[in-house]
Amino acid sequence: MLTFDFKNVFSVGDHGLLKEPDMSWFPQPSGKRYSFYDLPENGKLADEIAEFAREAREKFDHFVLLGIGGSALGARCIADALASASERGRLIILDNVDPALLSNATAGLDLARTLFLVVSKSGGTPETVAQYFYFREKTEATGLKATEHFVFVTDPEKGFLRKIAREEKIRSFEIPPEVGGRFSVLSACGLLPAALLGIDIHGLLRGAARQREGIFHTSFQENHAYQLAAIQYLLWKERGVPMTVIMPYSSQLSTFSDWYVQLLSESIGKEKNLRGETVNVGLTPVKAVGVTDQHAQVQLFTSGPFDKFLLFIEVSESDFDLKIPVMYESEKDFSYLHGVSFHQLLLTEKRATEQALTQYGRPNATVKISKLDSEHLGMLFMLFQESVAFLGELCGIDAFDQPGVELGKVLTKRLLS
Amino acid sequence: MLTFDFKNVFSVGDHGLLKEPDMSWFPQPSGKRYSFYDLPENGKLADEIAEFAREAREKFDHFVLLGIGGSALGARCIADALASASERGRLIILDNVDPALLSNATAGLDLARTLFLVVSKSGGTPETVAQYFYFREKTEATGLKATEHFVFVTDPEKGFLRKIAREEKIRSFEIPPEVGGRFSVLSACGLLPAALLGIDIHGLLRGAARQREGIFHTSFQENHAYQLAAIQYLLWKERGVPMTVIMPYSSQLSTFSDWYVQLLSESIGKEKNLRGETVNVGLTPVKAVGVTDQHAQVQLFTSGPFDKFLLFIEVSESDFDLKIPVMYESEKDFSYLHGVSFHQLLLTEKRATEQALTQYGRPNATVKISKLDSEHLGMLFMLFQESVAFLGELCGIDAFDQPGVELGKVLTKRLLS
Repeated sequence: MLTFDFKNVFSVGDHGLLKEPDMSWFPQPSGKRYSFYDLPENGKLADEIAEFAREAREKFDHFVLLGIGGSALGARCIADALASASERGRLIILDNVDPALLSNATAGLDLARTLFLVVSKSGGTPETVAQYFYFREKTEATGLKATEHFVFVTDPEKGFLRKIAREEKIRSFEIPPEVGGRFSVLSACGLLPAALLGIDIHGLLRGAARQREGIFHTSFQENHAYQLAAIQYLLWKERGVPMTVIMPYSSQLSTFSDWYVQLLSESIGKEKNLRGETVNVGLTPVKAVGVTDQHAQVQLFTSGPFDKFLLFIEVSESDFDLKIPVMYESEKDFSYLHGVSFHQLLLTEKRATEQALTQYGRPNATVKISKLDSEHLGMLFMLFQESVAFLGELCGIDAFDQPGVELGKVLTKRLLS
Repeated sequence: MLTFDFKNVFSVGDHGLLKEPDMSWFPQPSGKRYSFYDLPENGKLADEIAEFAREAREKFDHFVLLGIGGSALGARCIADALASASERGRLIILDNVDPALLSNATAGLDLARTLFLVVSKSGGTPETVAQYFYFREKTEATGLKATEHFVFVTDPEKGFLRKIAREEKIRSFEIPPEVGGRFSVLSACGLLPAALLGIDIHGLLRGAARQREGIFHTSFQENHAYQLAAIQYLLWKERGVPMTVIMPYSSQLSTFSDWYVQLLSESIGKEKNLRGETVNVGLTPVKAVGVTDQHAQVQLFTSGPFDKFLLFIEVSESDFDLKIPVMYESEKDFSYLHGVSFHQLLLTEKRATEQALTQYGRPNATVKISKLDSEHLGMLFMLFQESVAFLGELCGIDAFDQPGVELGKVLTKRLLS
């Protein structure tokens, strides 16, 4: 079960919204389908990946993902949210070219028991290609048959990685060409690393498919994605609120925020609108995690400028039943903690923070899932992707391109050539 | 060596500053000393901690830090920046009450070889006390003499932890009462966990002391901390720029940003000014890391609203000499990568991103350190703490309190009682 509670957007007077947004801008009745909609239907791909993973989990101890941006963020999020403690350690994600990371994260690795996942939608991301060269040479230098230690996730036709995969018969999985990197978590991009950690990838797709049903609802009450997009849009347009704080009360969802940071930043941060006019729009995502950030950022959220919308994620039930024991009974200051479960403490602090923020006039809302499992994570992915696509429509921009990063790429090449 | 290059604040036309800030508001000639100034002088404490750590490193395999906010962020930053790959794994930081974190992070731990660091300035942080109860009981339940497996870092006189330390003769270290949590990284708060990982804590203090010399310079050219504070202040006042993006090009400094996020958020985000007037000021820190975020947030930074100041951190030399090998020579698209070191690629991408952002009219500046070692990290800590203290003076607010988090604490207690 996934619910979206946004009453506190209307409980903060002039700092929030005064009435419910209507459906007048709702883009869906036009029948437009976004590229990521059909990914949950690809059960055949999931079967194929699961089968590959079954074998690879026997043959290899570690999986090293070479990839950056959308090629890494979804995988890390799934692993952190769903993998058990012992499985999580099997996946190493190298999403930077910093040699300190490459060296430290792979120190002591047994290459004979390591599989490298080279993930690049275009098949030619320079950072990823550089890492591939490095680890390919390293693997061969130990006398291993390199092609057996690499698997590619890339475009079905184009790009350097696809060419190499064909020529050297390296096992590969496809990212549909029409699906952009930041919307690719439910493609092989996210599913392959997930399956390698023994995660139920069919559950991810099932949850996403279920959540997707809400997209076409033309009743405001039924369409969570449109609710979220409309609230963000109106808070920005009517109240000048340019930031969305994404704050899961869950350490396992801490990197869900990183995934959302890319999704919102790259999709909505645009110089031009669809008519080609210079608009320089964008909402800035701010990452936080509860309860931790109550001791770091909440002071700013309660007391600083009225420039933020706070979006909580709450998980109703926990798999971990840990209780605070009764100790030092004479210390009355802490008797309220005795016998309370840690999950109950977490949820209570969330409720208290939400109430405090509302009292301080800060608009906030909560996405609540009943538990953190594959299905519910799939629902979250779909909800947030949909809401960002809708937000793009409301802002009148193309949510699926990223022209503002080209100049940096060109300059890098020029400086090195 | 630490330098601060802010020429790109003046190279972006109307979006940046038109002339150099002057020293007219400079607060230091009044002789005011901030609470954190004297920490680098405490060589005796560092000796004591180093001696304790020498023994503890023999007796224990793992160190579990129970603490939140300022009690955890500095320790994590130091560990990530300076510990070797094998040492880093010995420190587990539990800065949340999420039972999933408590359970996963301590799975398989041998309690007989584990030391718990309970870190709380007030000695009564509820989250930390709850964790203490939990692990204290767990340790005793295995038949261990619990007092030998705990060390406290807390106020010298007041609070629950101090009382318990006295009564049960638990080894403890002091945080000077006048030093706030977010300014405590150079107290036992940061030094103890650092020393337990074999890090040169005297170097941290030496670097901080060296950087501190710049504080009292009344020449703008010599005073990096004032330069940074004045730039942030003027970009906010004159250009309406409410966000500082902190973007180290270093995976090891990724959590330095988390430390700075707390420092800037809690210090400057204030409802009232020093005259008691309601002002709701605050600058919002946005965390990013290079090169990774070129594939996640840079699209927004180049193309979105003109609401951000970008602050890079660059490390000139790397300890890790890894080269991109020459492979697939016929693929001309990637020949520019051949033979380039990963560190050179990292620095070149930084330069390219900086140039692109400047061309897009985005004010940016770079703090450059020659290498990442204890001394230079100490310099960074002192520079950023000073600049935030100065910024508080410029904004006319108290940078050292956090009244905006009290309501949440009260509500939590009420909801649980």
